[in-house]
Amino acid sequence: VRTIEWDEQNQRLRMIDQRRLPAEFALVEYDDHQAVAQAIQTMVVRGAPAIGAAAGFGLALAALRSTASEPAALRADLAAAAETLKAARPTAVNLAWAVHRILEHLPAEASAAELRRVVLAEAQRIADEDVEINLRMARHGAALIHDGDTVIHHCNTGALATVDWGTALGVIRMAHTQGKRIHVLVDETRPRLQGARLTAWELSQYGIPYDLISDGAAGYFLSSGQVQAAFFGGDRMAANGDVANKIGTYMLALACRDNSVSAYSVVPTSTIDLSLVSGAQIPIELRDPTEVLSLQVDGSPVAPAGATALNPAFDVTPSRLLTGIITEAGVVYPPYEINLRRAVQAAHSEAAR
Amino acid sequence: VRTIEWDEQNQRLRMIDQRRLPAEFALVEYDDHQAVAQAIQTMVVRGAPAIGAAAGFGLALAALRSTASEPAALRADLAAAAETLKAARPTAVNLAWAVHRILEHLPAEASAAELRRVVLAEAQRIADEDVEINLRMARHGAALIHDGDTVIHHCNTGALATVDWGTALGVIRMAHTQGKRIHVLVDETRPRLQGARLTAWELSQYGIPYDLISDGAAGYFLSSGQVQAAFFGGDRMAANGDVANKIGTYMLALACRDNSVSAYSVVPTSTIDLSLVSGAQIPIELRDPTEVLSLQVDGSPVAPAGATALNPAFDVTPSRLLTGIITEAGVVYPPYEINLRRAVQAAHSEAAR
Repeated sequence: VRTIEWDEQNQRLRMIDQRRLPAEFALVEYDDHQAVAQAIQTMVVRGAPAIGAAAGFGLALAALRSTASEPAALRADLAAAAETLKAARPTAVNLAWAVHRILEHLPAEASAAELRRVVLAEAQRIADEDVEINLRMARHGAALIHDGDTVIHHCNTGALATVDWGTALGVIRMAHTQGKRIHVLVDETRPRLQGARLTAWELSQYGIPYDLISDGAAGYFLSSGQVQAAFFGGDRMAANGDVANKIGTYMLALACRDNSVSAYSVVPTSTIDLSLVSGAQIPIELRDPTEVLSLQVDGSPVAPAGATALNPAFDVTPSRLLTGIITEAGVVYPPYEINLRRAVQAAHSEAAR
Repeated sequence: VRTIEWDEQNQRLRMIDQRRLPAEFALVEYDDHQAVAQAIQTMVVRGAPAIGAAAGFGLALAALRSTASEPAALRADLAAAAETLKAARPTAVNLAWAVHRILEHLPAEASAAELRRVVLAEAQRIADEDVEINLRMARHGAALIHDGDTVIHHCNTGALATVDWGTALGVIRMAHTQGKRIHVLVDETRPRLQGARLTAWELSQYGIPYDLISDGAAGYFLSSGQVQAAFFGGDRMAANGDVANKIGTYMLALACRDNSVSAYSVVPTSTIDLSLVSGAQIPIELRDPTEVLSLQVDGSPVAPAGATALNPAFDVTPSRLLTGIITEAGVVYPPYEINLRRAVQAAHSEAAR
């Protein structure tokens, strides 16, 4: 089962409800783009590549459900739907990337029916390519993992964060598939605990040995020489390699650097936003403080009544802390300003072939 | 109410049960040293100065409850109780410090009754001095906080972590008492969430504005220029200033350094273990993985069934990351090898006066 799948028969979108994992494996179906935008906002689906693909199908639903019979009216409906979908979450660029890719693909002269076909076909192409791209990143990255390594991983970047296979966790999974004996230290990843909920669940499905740790414990394991590399994803990367990723990634990368442990961001080129000079320009989503405050232990709330919280969902890791950036076009090393642009171009040429 | 108090009338120890805060404020009474050791191990009482004082009273209970009538037999009982108390938790040196201070204070020639009096009196002196020492540290440290500052704090180091007042949180509280307008970012401090449970509760009692944050979010606030200083405690500090403190402190200190934000460890000289050359020699307690795995949200467990975890309770922050060390003898700056020893000597001379 893919995380995100188009139901051809009923012409609707089916996704795994990630909020209910690991307790329950449930599929939810979506009939219109507003519901898809809501699912992205409430994190039924999360992970930069996954929300890109979901937004693509959201646009397909907007095209199919639009009552417009004239192409111009349909184009207007699509433009409005695109804005709704892009506004669902601000940090991951894949949302805007997928929506723009589809809109740019629309032929200048076409009937409404033809436009509908093109939108759906391009959304499906984005989803299918995502799996292919993940497998390519996984092979490039797995070469950096050695038999016997312990690696550290932040958030969830597996099959659940993509259409299938995964980015950073896909690299780890590929190394395991290649027969390398590895151990994964899984950051639980507060506040939404995607590490504890989703990555631990995926690793147990794949039979890869792991241990959950508190996010703050990464420094202990890194400084005691127990870790050979860290792998994480990315939600938006600037032209200089600065990368916005799940909150806590920056501190993990600092601890890697302080102990000369390699730190890799694993991102498809669709996550690279060449229009931004540096990470300072990436918008950071501030989410509901309830995500920090809703924790329970033994059935009781942890924080005192009336407690307040702040909840930035992402932070920016400066590219000076990255050993390399793993893309579908290969592993990119400094100088990132030059080499990232080349990787994006190489990926485009490959896609065009 | 002090966190730790001797009940003169009933000759027993009374402590706040910190595991039940903030939901419930409950006092528990202890009649023998085994129960005190258990309370330290299960974290009814925690915080380096607090468990030092609790161990002192534990030894007093051992003296009072011992059936020995001969001084030699009583000394043997005390030595056995000292071992039980010291074994309760390995990292904080204050446990051993308090127990040894009392044993070294015993007169060479004395009746069993006199020995009992001396043990109890010295335990009470340790507790009373703790409050005095905290107030002195608080005044030294508060001078480093300016009106309008936002400071970041890890774990709980307040009145609950000491006999009364607090170490790092005592510094923050003193700045507030002096009329400085301050805002505190409170690391929730996984896995046991002493920040969310205890520090948030204390700050609301004192009327100091704060916001809870995930531990991994500290880097975001530090790198966006919103924080002027970080204050944390210490469980054991080596002669070179390396300090073992609650897990996550090292990554916080790294993020401070990367953003040129001051980071202070606030420790009484009883936390400084001059017998250790560096932090590499500090034993780190590995606690039950259940502390990581027992998290719930909406009444459901977060981690999948069968998940495994690793749970180091402390990490070591190298002294190169500390801007200064705040002790009762003043703020100590590098070179720490020389200046920490001087501070310990100054504190001893002061205590001897």
